[in-house]
Amino acid sequence: MSKLTHFNESGAAHMVDVGAKPMTQRVAVAEGYIEMRSETLDLIMQGGHKKGDVLGIARIAGILASKKTSELIPLCHPIPITNVDLVLEPQRERGRVYCQATVKTVGQTGVEMEALTAVQVALLTVYDMCKAVDRGMTIQSVRLLEKAGGRSGHWQREKDQA
Amino acid sequence: MSKLTHFNESGAAHMVDVGAKPMTQRVAVAEGYIEMRSETLDLIMQGGHKKGDVLGIARIAGILASKKTSELIPLCHPIPITNVDLVLEPQRERGRVYCQATVKTVGQTGVEMEALTAVQVALLTVYDMCKAVDRGMTIQSVRLLEKAGGRSGHWQREKDQA
Amino acid sequence: MSKLTHFNESGAAHMVDVGAKPMTQRVAVAEGYIEMRSETLDLIMQGGHKKGDVLGIARIAGILASKKTSELIPLCHPIPITNVDLVLEPQRERGRVYCQATVKTVGQTGVEMEALTAVQVALLTVYDMCKAVDRGMTIQSVRLLEKAGGRSGHWQREKDQA
Amino acid sequence: MSKLTHFNESGAAHMVDVGAKPMTQRVAVAEGYIEMRSETLDLIMQGGHKKGDVLGIARIAGILASKKTSELIPLCHPIPITNVDLVLEPQRERGRVYCQATVKTVGQTGVEMEALTAVQVALLTVYDMCKAVDRGMTIQSVRLLEKAGGRSGHWQREKDQA
Amino acid sequence: MSKLTHFNESGAAHMVDVGAKPMTQRVAVAEGYIEMRSETLDLIMQGGHKKGDVLGIARIAGILASKKTSELIPLCHPIPITNVDLVLEPQRERGRVYCQATVKTVGQTGVEMEALTAVQVALLTVYDMCKAVDRGMTIQSVRLLEKAGGRSGHWQREKDQA
Amino acid sequence: MSKLTHFNESGAAHMVDVGAKPMTQRVAVAEGYIEMRSETLDLIMQGGHKKGDVLGIARIAGILASKKTSELIPLCHPIPITNVDLVLEPQRERGRVYCQATVKTVGQTGVEMEALTAVQVALLTVYDMCKAVDRGMTIQSVRLLEKAGGRSGHWQREKDQA
Repeated sequence: MSKLTHFNESGAAHMVDVGAKPMTQRVAVAEGYIEMRSETLDLIMQGGHKKGDVLGIARIAGILASKKTSELIPLCHPIPITNVDLVLEPQRERGRVYCQATVKTVGQTGVEMEALTAVQVALLTVYDMCKAVDRGMTIQSVRLLEKAGGRSGHWQREKDQA
Repeated sequence: MSKLTHFNESGAAHMVDVGAKPMTQRVAVAEGYIEMRSETLDLIMQGGHKKGDVLGIARIAGILASKKTSELIPLCHPIPITNVDLVLEPQRERGRVYCQATVKTVGQTGVEMEALTAVQVALLTVYDMCKAVDRGMTIQSVRLLEKAGGRSGHWQREKDQA
Repeated sequence: MSKLTHFNESGAAHMVDVGAKPMTQRVAVAEGYIEMRSETLDLIMQGGHKKGDVLGIARIAGILASKKTSELIPLCHPIPITNVDLVLEPQRERGRVYCQATVKTVGQTGVEMEALTAVQVALLTVYDMCKAVDRGMTIQSVRLLEKAGGRSGHWQREKDQA
Repeated sequence: MSKLTHFNESGAAHMVDVGAKPMTQRVAVAEGYIEMRSETLDLIMQGGHKKGDVLGIARIAGILASKKTSELIPLCHPIPITNVDLVLEPQRERGRVYCQATVKTVGQTGVEMEALTAVQVALLTVYDMCKAVDRGMTIQSVRLLEKAGGRSGHWQREKDQA
Repeated sequence: MSKLTHFNESGAAHMVDVGAKPMTQRVAVAEGYIEMRSETLDLIMQGGHKKGDVLGIARIAGILASKKTSELIPLCHPIPITNVDLVLEPQRERGRVYCQATVKTVGQTGVEMEALTAVQVALLTVYDMCKAVDRGMTIQSVRLLEKAGGRSGHWQREKDQA
Repeated sequence: MSKLTHFNESGAAHMVDVGAKPMTQRVAVAEGYIEMRSETLDLIMQGGHKKGDVLGIARIAGILASKKTSELIPLCHPIPITNVDLVLEPQRERGRVYCQATVKTVGQTGVEMEALTAVQVALLTVYDMCKAVDRGMTIQSVRLLEKAGGRSGHWQREKDQA
């Protein structure tokens, strides 16, 4: 039966030993979105053409946050990220901003948490910048889409799981 | 018409001036949950009785993260938080762990972002500790429930918005 | 004769005691610029109309850095900043990007260091984003322009000092 | 024509992918100085013989800051620095303190930003410790002197560029 | 009977609510020392007269660490420190470096943890800088000496407790 | 004769160059304890069975702190830790909580400071959570027990040194 690896044999939390694992290319893709009123989305989309760019700021916040993952998540290993790419896309017909983050490293452990953290903080930043006009915005479906590299191999979310 | 306050008159992003606002008691309550397989939830609930306690660790991660909010969210003001309380509750019938964070301050601006950040990082920590057995877990419905204090007064999510 | 206040009577460095000073409104304005080739400046100015906005990113980096000042400067007091405004202006005829930061607080000590740190990190961020095309860029004249509030009163740089 | 590499094909800011680059020895040297009144410089030079040592503290601040570079500069990669050396030299005849930082790593990307950040924060710390006696001090000519290692090879500032 | 205040009524860890407490002047004094070989202490004392000053660097590390206390200690409140003073004193006859930290604030909660953290990190820094010549050094008797301010009033360690 | 390696030839503090050292498996073990009244220890031990678990929280604080070591100790190299294990054990007969930390990396320099920092912050966290009932608690005997890996080879504390 499967076990939670973040606890050692005596049942205490620990940072798992990854020292014997090889350095491999790893990638993780995560996604999520924030639902809002259509008027709020309009304000964001207008801003995209000016100096005050909600999505541009959220993208930077997400990238910076991915570098802070091991400070935020207690048992995460510090990882030298080699690449972060963040898509932030207003989807007017669905009344939301969609976010997708791709994070890569060459290391001994994966970057799922870094990708998820980037998505979370990017969406929180959208919330922060628009909350004066729309307190009810809701962050939804933050989850892993895909991971590759490492012993556990390739994992991809099934279509019907969406 | 409403405007995004995080941009100044020339349209550039700035940290809004709150210096003239009075110091008042403020509170914010946020919530969210993480969906998972029932086997995963069982593992978490068993751990609650041992030294390795997923929810206890997630609670600490959420509290620590609320203190980092102004580092993560670019235009947030640094705020001297006076209280953080985090509920993490396994809900077996719904196949999820529910999280609710209450944050208080005596200050010139609100603590909505601190409450939302606490929820996000607590749920991410649950993901991290269980991801070896369940990569498909999804974080849902992270949102503000209530805020009080300050000029904008009391705000509460309507029931049907849930 | 004047003395360096960051050392105590026995000559050891300390964080000066500001506990008896009143809470007052304080403001500081700092400036600086980064010189570059005209081709580099052109690339930056073209980017201002697209999603990839060098100056927008530098502005966010400067605002975030001002919140980290007391972590960076050993004897600085932690200060609850109430406002940060950053101007970043390409000046084509002078071959440079000019930066001016205004920081405010209500507190027991001034925000000069916060304003200077914002300028420095904003200009460093411009360097980072353009260094692949122009390694020779140089940061110049980072200095305080004005401060107000507190016992030492109002200070303003004389014109001929520029 | 040259392009700003910190933007991806769709024009959005990203952290450039360095995962395929080899690990090589890299070094960067940066410099800068802070101009001040001769009386201020005298105070600093007297302090060098006592426990309260402005330049000693500035050196430590610069070294610590170089380790924070990827937190401060949004699109910088986290880099495991292997060596930092900081020279801080009072130059009485020029009325200034000169700073030079050498940073090394074995990694996939360069350390120019780490060297520049070390210089900036060391000079800011000098400003902080002397500002009570000299608010007009100005930081000048912060720039890269040399870099080596990596695909772009060796770069050195030309003499007449100084 | 006394209770651990860091747990709420349901037994979960929380950051205690201090929002209703008045802002008062508070001070805490902590101490500790690090034992070492006399040869090691001689090296430190020689360095005190040169640019490379072990105790000067340890003092700065302790001051910086006191500002990070609420990041390190999960349930600590963020506190705007108004003063930090650190004594580091070689005691040759006892083969040790003694450290005493005094921290002050005007706030709703005490600064005991800030004073203890300053002592701990200052002594750790001494260890770091001397470990190449003396791995056996031991940190001893890190404890609170005195606290004043706040509802619990003045507390002072009894002589025989030393 | 031995020299303090954290100073360069001119006597200035620097971060030692480790770039030419090979990447090897390294481990360090450190220990320490906190003395307290037996009533305080009883409160901790009762809590171990409930949601509010002093030792569980201290363990997480220690693990997180080990990842912050290079931010706290000025001349420490940033190190990608691969494993942290922390034992926290109430020893009723001795009236104390004992802590032992084991830290591993694959890198160019050792992890002694990471292990010592983990112990220090874990014990400080115990102090924080119990200080309302016992201000006199004292942290004792924080020291290295063993290190392995790297050029200086294996080191182990002799029994009589305890």
